[in-house]
Amino acid sequence: MGPEFTLEYIQTLIAGGERGALEAGLAGLHSADAAERMLGLEPTEVAHFVQLLGPDKALPVFEFVPLDVQKEALKHLDRQTLVQLTTLMSPDDRADLVEELDEDFKDRLLSLLSANMRQNVRRLMDYPEDSAGAYMTTDYALLHPDSDVQSALEEVRLQAATAETVYYIYVVDRSLHLLGLVSLRDLIVARRRSRVGDIMSKPVISVRADEDIEEVAKLTTHYDFLAVPVLDDQGRMLGIITFDDLYDIITEEATEDMYHLANLDTDEKIDSPLMRSVKLRVPWLLSNLATCLVPAYVVSLFAHTIQEAVALASLMLIVASLGGNAGNQSLTVVVRALALGEIKLRHNQRVLAKQVAVGMFSGLIAGMVIGTIAYLWYGNPWLGLIVWLALVGNLIIAGLFGALVPIILRRLKLDPALGSSIFVTTATDVGGYSIFLGLAVLVMPHLAGR
Amino acid sequence: MGPEFTLEYIQTLIAGGERGALEAGLAGLHSADAAERMLGLEPTEVAHFVQLLGPDKALPVFEFVPLDVQKEALKHLDRQTLVQLTTLMSPDDRADLVEELDEDFKDRLLSLLSANMRQNVRRLMDYPEDSAGAYMTTDYALLHPDSDVQSALEEVRLQAATAETVYYIYVVDRSLHLLGLVSLRDLIVARRRSRVGDIMSKPVISVRADEDIEEVAKLTTHYDFLAVPVLDDQGRMLGIITFDDLYDIITEEATEDMYHLANLDTDEKIDSPLMRSVKLRVPWLLSNLATCLVPAYVVSLFAHTIQEAVALASLMLIVASLGGNAGNQSLTVVVRALALGEIKLRHNQRVLAKQVAVGMFSGLIAGMVIGTIAYLWYGNPWLGLIVWLALVGNLIIAGLFGALVPIILRRLKLDPALGSSIFVTTATDVGGYSIFLGLAVLVMPHLAGR
Repeated sequence: MGPEFTLEYIQTLIAGGERGALEAGLAGLHSADAAERMLGLEPTEVAHFVQLLGPDKALPVFEFVPLDVQKEALKHLDRQTLVQLTTLMSPDDRADLVEELDEDFKDRLLSLLSANMRQNVRRLMDYPEDSAGAYMTTDYALLHPDSDVQSALEEVRLQAATAETVYYIYVVDRSLHLLGLVSLRDLIVARRRSRVGDIMSKPVISVRADEDIEEVAKLTTHYDFLAVPVLDDQGRMLGIITFDDLYDIITEEATEDMYHLANLDTDEKIDSPLMRSVKLRVPWLLSNLATCLVPAYVVSLFAHTIQEAVALASLMLIVASLGGNAGNQSLTVVVRALALGEIKLRHNQRVLAKQVAVGMFSGLIAGMVIGTIAYLWYGNPWLGLIVWLALVGNLIIAGLFGALVPIILRRLKLDPALGSSIFVTTATDVGGYSIFLGLAVLVMPHLAGR
Repeated sequence: MGPEFTLEYIQTLIAGGERGALEAGLAGLHSADAAERMLGLEPTEVAHFVQLLGPDKALPVFEFVPLDVQKEALKHLDRQTLVQLTTLMSPDDRADLVEELDEDFKDRLLSLLSANMRQNVRRLMDYPEDSAGAYMTTDYALLHPDSDVQSALEEVRLQAATAETVYYIYVVDRSLHLLGLVSLRDLIVARRRSRVGDIMSKPVISVRADEDIEEVAKLTTHYDFLAVPVLDDQGRMLGIITFDDLYDIITEEATEDMYHLANLDTDEKIDSPLMRSVKLRVPWLLSNLATCLVPAYVVSLFAHTIQEAVALASLMLIVASLGGNAGNQSLTVVVRALALGEIKLRHNQRVLAKQVAVGMFSGLIAGMVIGTIAYLWYGNPWLGLIVWLALVGNLIIAGLFGALVPIILRRLKLDPALGSSIFVTTATDVGGYSIFLGLAVLVMPHLAGR
């Protein structure tokens, strides 16, 4: 095997222009792994790497290099290599990369591309960020319905060099209207003389280019499709979204929900620069401040009550904390079910009623334990009783708001996870403190002095 | 189209034994959609449906019926249909279903199957729940290296009827040791006389049957594979895991992390029966109680301080609440990065240092705003100052514990998300109350009476 194919060794080979040794080292590696070992290369080194190997051999690795490094590396390529590399890229990757470039360089690069390709890049860049159009590739395999299977297989063989996948092949008429779908499995099994139009399956489930990518993911995984076609308003093929994109999309959508539940900006990454993370988090903390001023104000209204029975100051925390926890439980169950399409609009009331009931019963059971502890701690049964009652009340609030907030956000066509935990926690904090301290006022003669 | 293909209509057709109309209605529908419309059918009706259509035509729809309905429906099938249907199922689905059956019925069914199939089911059921073995199917396409492409294509055509996918074909020796991989794309493009052994790619990236399914998902999506082979300790093929399983696995793993962050049991579903949800949630609420008794106790130690300056009772809530929020931010970023494999062990210290620094700077900035509000609210600059300082301190604690807890859980080979938010919130609650009230004690002469 020779020396280990480490970052340092790769750097030496690139610097020394040792094309043969580089190719040998890459031969035993998957491109994704090669790109991973090359993390840490300067963009100029990546550019040298591309020049050295030539665009066609370098591309499989280059595709796995992070976008911000790709972007910088392009600037150091000679004109011919730049055009060749960009031309070889798959249309969706190309559009994503061009979109990242600085305006000047973007214009220069676009002017170097063929008119067709320039138009293709421009069209792909035009789709909104979270739409099907932004994720699709325009390199798909297609057939006409009148071909026989024998010649269809020949055509697919020719298209295999460029198409993103040849396992689903789309059957279209002359104006690219989608008529049906044949899988390569269907084709190799079919009799050689059958007509493609006779063996294709139809209707084909498809999405529009402006469809929300989260819906596309739901649809595709629902049907276990390997790829899904993207159509324009007239039902003509624009592109396809394939399973490997779907891996990323499902992962990204889940990350987005988790981040939103934790009041985090989705732009934050584990390796974001320090001050960028700070900048992204402070607004969320301040919006949380705005809402936690409400419970703080509620408590300040009961200042006199607390002064008379200071045990309340610590016990009220338990009521609020468990309420927050229960609210977050209901919220998470409902947000996830909405994201996965498990809640239909007509089920809203049932979902709501159940979460409220879960809150009530959990409150009755957990409240009994907690009330008993409060009683034993301060030796006052009245304290135990109001802790219990307040917990039941607050867990009902938790179930109600935990289900209601995401359902309302969804109705308003907003992300059900976004900022929802702030609303729910505010509700359970206000609910917990006011019910508990309110009850304390009622039974004050039995508490005072504790 | 005739009448709409609704649940009621399907029920009528099944009751009337109208096979023709049922088939006609199903013809225009994807099986996943047909199964969705049939949600609400009694298991006996599902069984009638299978009897009526015959196992081969009913299976595509039956596969999409929820597992608990499948399980009940089986009991109402006649013996021949039962055996045929089970035999036709894909091995992984079959094993999943048999695993769900009651012991008696399971034994009866297994005794009806062929010896080979019985062994196959037993082997698949033996793999631990979250292992690669539990998710794989044993119906994969395979070739020998000495075949030429022409005859390989013939063989694949024959295997297409049963193999889960024919797009990745595994090249094995006579004892099933995995030698290489050819894609169907490679095969149709290759010259007819080439040897499979010469065009196959190798080494093939594979997983062991006992590998954690989360790691399998990470690997497969990293390489954008359509399927991944599962091997035994000797490197022999046991099965494959395909892209459609991966859609589910990625989704399930994300749900698991979200649920664990919200202290929810992963067995809870949006439509779990009420008392089951209560049963699953109460233990979590009580474990949260155990930890929120600590901050409540800390506050009780400062009872005298609070009595002297009751403004503290409301302001301490803000310090704790923002600390909890910031802790949850760090926790979520780190848990997600761990789940996606973005943090290597050697990066732990850097991750920790960054989260602490983010906490400190966020505390300095947000604390200034909050301190000013506290000052204006109660007209006391000392109150503002200690709110500010306490917030800086508590947000450092938030960053520290938000990063430390999941990293330690991972080191202990536990799920980094499981129960972690309880630890982090306890840390920020205790930290928030004790720093804030402790500072209050120090400056008490300037606060008393407020």
